[in-house]
Amino acid sequence: MDFKAVLHVLGAMLIFIGGSLTFPIAVSLYYGDGDLYPFVTSLVIIIISGFAFWWFTPADRELRSREGFAVVSFGWLALAAFGALPFVLSSASLSYTDAFFETMSGFTTTGATILTDVESLPHGLLFWRSFTHWLGGMGIILLSLAILPMLGVGGMQLFKAEVPGPSVDKIQPRIQDTAKILWGVYVMLSIVESTLLWFGGMTVFDALCHTFGTMATGGFSTKNAGIMHFQSAYIEYVIAFFMLLAGANFALHYRFLQRKATAYQKNTEFRSYIGIILSVTLFLMVITHIQNFYDYSEAFRKGLFQVVSLMTTTGFHSADYELWSTPAQFLLVMLMFIGGCAGSTGGGIKVVRIVLIFKHLAAQLKRLVHPHAVIPVRLNNKSVSREAITDILGFLLVYMLLFAISSFVMTLMGLDLISSVSTVISTLGNIGPGIGTIGPTENFAHIPAAGKWFLSFLMLAGRLEIFTVLIIFNRHFWIR
Amino acid sequence: MDFKAVLHVLGAMLIFIGGSLTFPIAVSLYYGDGDLYPFVTSLVIIIISGFAFWWFTPADRELRSREGFAVVSFGWLALAAFGALPFVLSSASLSYTDAFFETMSGFTTTGATILTDVESLPHGLLFWRSFTHWLGGMGIILLSLAILPMLGVGGMQLFKAEVPGPSVDKIQPRIQDTAKILWGVYVMLSIVESTLLWFGGMTVFDALCHTFGTMATGGFSTKNAGIMHFQSAYIEYVIAFFMLLAGANFALHYRFLQRKATAYQKNTEFRSYIGIILSVTLFLMVITHIQNFYDYSEAFRKGLFQVVSLMTTTGFHSADYELWSTPAQFLLVMLMFIGGCAGSTGGGIKVVRIVLIFKHLAAQLKRLVHPHAVIPVRLNNKSVSREAITDILGFLLVYMLLFAISSFVMTLMGLDLISSVSTVISTLGNIGPGIGTIGPTENFAHIPAAGKWFLSFLMLAGRLEIFTVLIIFNRHFWIR
Repeated sequence: MDFKAVLHVLGAMLIFIGGSLTFPIAVSLYYGDGDLYPFVTSLVIIIISGFAFWWFTPADRELRSREGFAVVSFGWLALAAFGALPFVLSSASLSYTDAFFETMSGFTTTGATILTDVESLPHGLLFWRSFTHWLGGMGIILLSLAILPMLGVGGMQLFKAEVPGPSVDKIQPRIQDTAKILWGVYVMLSIVESTLLWFGGMTVFDALCHTFGTMATGGFSTKNAGIMHFQSAYIEYVIAFFMLLAGANFALHYRFLQRKATAYQKNTEFRSYIGIILSVTLFLMVITHIQNFYDYSEAFRKGLFQVVSLMTTTGFHSADYELWSTPAQFLLVMLMFIGGCAGSTGGGIKVVRIVLIFKHLAAQLKRLVHPHAVIPVRLNNKSVSREAITDILGFLLVYMLLFAISSFVMTLMGLDLISSVSTVISTLGNIGPGIGTIGPTENFAHIPAAGKWFLSFLMLAGRLEIFTVLIIFNRHFWIR
Repeated sequence: MDFKAVLHVLGAMLIFIGGSLTFPIAVSLYYGDGDLYPFVTSLVIIIISGFAFWWFTPADRELRSREGFAVVSFGWLALAAFGALPFVLSSASLSYTDAFFETMSGFTTTGATILTDVESLPHGLLFWRSFTHWLGGMGIILLSLAILPMLGVGGMQLFKAEVPGPSVDKIQPRIQDTAKILWGVYVMLSIVESTLLWFGGMTVFDALCHTFGTMATGGFSTKNAGIMHFQSAYIEYVIAFFMLLAGANFALHYRFLQRKATAYQKNTEFRSYIGIILSVTLFLMVITHIQNFYDYSEAFRKGLFQVVSLMTTTGFHSADYELWSTPAQFLLVMLMFIGGCAGSTGGGIKVVRIVLIFKHLAAQLKRLVHPHAVIPVRLNNKSVSREAITDILGFLLVYMLLFAISSFVMTLMGLDLISSVSTVISTLGNIGPGIGTIGPTENFAHIPAAGKWFLSFLMLAGRLEIFTVLIIFNRHFWIR
């Protein structure tokens, strides 16, 4: 392990994050509602720490895959650890546990919150809270389309060929080009959404913060009632549409913008994603119309919004879905497992893995009938290697195992059965709310401190496709 | 599909099951408490139907693997369909739905019951009810150690080399020899257990019925309060010990009886099985001691009994574990997923699959660190093929998928979330009781009829390692 090379990169990340505090500082200056001093203090501490790491370590060493894993895992950890400072120093004066949880929730684009009254917070802090989503979303796009495919985590190698940018063998130039292209798409979509939300009657501040929550599939809101606060069908549809885009592969958006009009419809994952969203929405429309007396257009809108929000792992709510019937809630929980598409800012297992698993199972059934036939699994008309399938099956199992073990851990914290399971699905899938005591109208404030640290770990593990984090606990990782 | 050859075998199975009704008839004659006439009628109907199938179909055609699957799936179905007759015709006068559910629960060694007052039933019927367990257990031993390994279901091919008996290539002679050896072990253990239970104060009738429930890991009792009725630590320990044996691989028992003293300790699956049982028992001992005020020896006994009962998928209870704390209940549910060992009468996923999955994941983590290393997965000092691992991963996924989809189906029947999930775990894993509205002191009577049919299907699917049943729904299965 080349610790120094890792620290060098971490230092650079901290300088970047420290610098990004200038945005909430600007917001604080504009609104003049306090917290300027805590932000400036945080900025100074973070940038100095970053410089210290960066300065005393050698520059420009080539990173091997092992250091890649370390940079990613410890990088996100460092962001949460230092990014939590403003929450501790500000007038919100959170405990470090709560501040760390909230910031990890932000950078991992989870959106789980321990704050009970966000509307009482100064604008600068609320802006920083939502901004951590947006920065985390940038990180995830880079990670899932440029870094993890090269490290070969959980079948992500499948997407090596899918990403835009010149094909150069050295890691760094390729990462930089891919990043620039995809971040361009991300920024552009963010500008369009915030403009549309502003047109819809939001203040510029609310429009920006909700855009950050949407495009990163995060889910932090500046209002206690979340999206329900605005009581606007227009806003619900705009946010639903952009959540849908944020939960799809950004490489597809890029291709579409390059006038490849069929990019979406040719992509198996995207078709399945839309298929799942539409069929569950229609089911919810009927069932909530009957049970909750919504008219059909409201039932469709509420259903669509909630399906898109939970499946993309955003976690906004436009209705208290805990009042819906048991089958409706069950389906929403299943969507939380599936998650968004690979290469999106969404979390969860990812649609493409679910698709490949179903294809694999169909092939396995066929093989039982025709033991000697060769039955390949195909995706987007390309044959998928047996190794990739095994990796994906392994990923799914680790996901389910971690889910089961973690739920047990949460029962030890005194939570009831449904809430234990739900807190884990919600944090491991980077969603935010769930069912039980962390439903859409509740929050994570009541979880004991040990539980908050544990759930923070799950957010990180889920966000980094689990293996990236698990590998750190492997003894072989540290040898040599 | 050679339908006639399949029908021929089904006919023979029905004749055998019809003939086995002579045992409850003898019990009825002895106690003289009714139901003689319904049993004789059932016997005549079943044997005549069996003869009709058998007589009009050609004898001794070689079965291909496809017909093997059909015989197994439709065989179990026919047993439940015809074996339900005594429940309908007798003084219990169940609806056909209830009778089918109860009989399927018997033959699949599940032990889920729709009967609310078993003590009011005549002895003959109670005997038949428990006897279906024992016959089902015989079928499962044959299936899991002789038939499924040849058909290559869910990694069962791993055990091809493990089973006793001469290695002949033709299916039939090998099956017969293996069956005779293992059934010998099964009968012998049953005799020992019923003798010990009789010594412990049970009547011969109760001793036999509870032995059937134990050795088949079924769980039907002749008492409304189950094992709690007897209030005897001796009986609890005897039953726990034989459940433990019934949940282990019968090929191991055979080898041990052949004076291979190290058979158990050399077997990785058995060691893991014991390891899981002991560690969960110790955890439960401490937690129930603290929470439920048991003294340590009672806490150990209650814990051990419940762990063994649920993990082996028997489903007896010696305490109302729904009064235990949430972490305790959560662990018990996890054990219900794991299930017994391969080659036992236990259901669930099977310990060996869980063991191999953990080994596979460890290997996958190592491969991420050393991308070019060859890291084989080994079981009992033999390397396991990548195909077997993929089959096992596939099995687990199908298990989880079927679990998720079926839980959704049960929410549609109006059950609450926990009961929906619990009815599915309990039937798919062939356990019997669960948590929620089907807890140890409750039963399945309140489930709507559609739900009872659906759960019957799950019992069958779970018992036959899922693929054996799923394959029937595959279009390719029926072609040619």
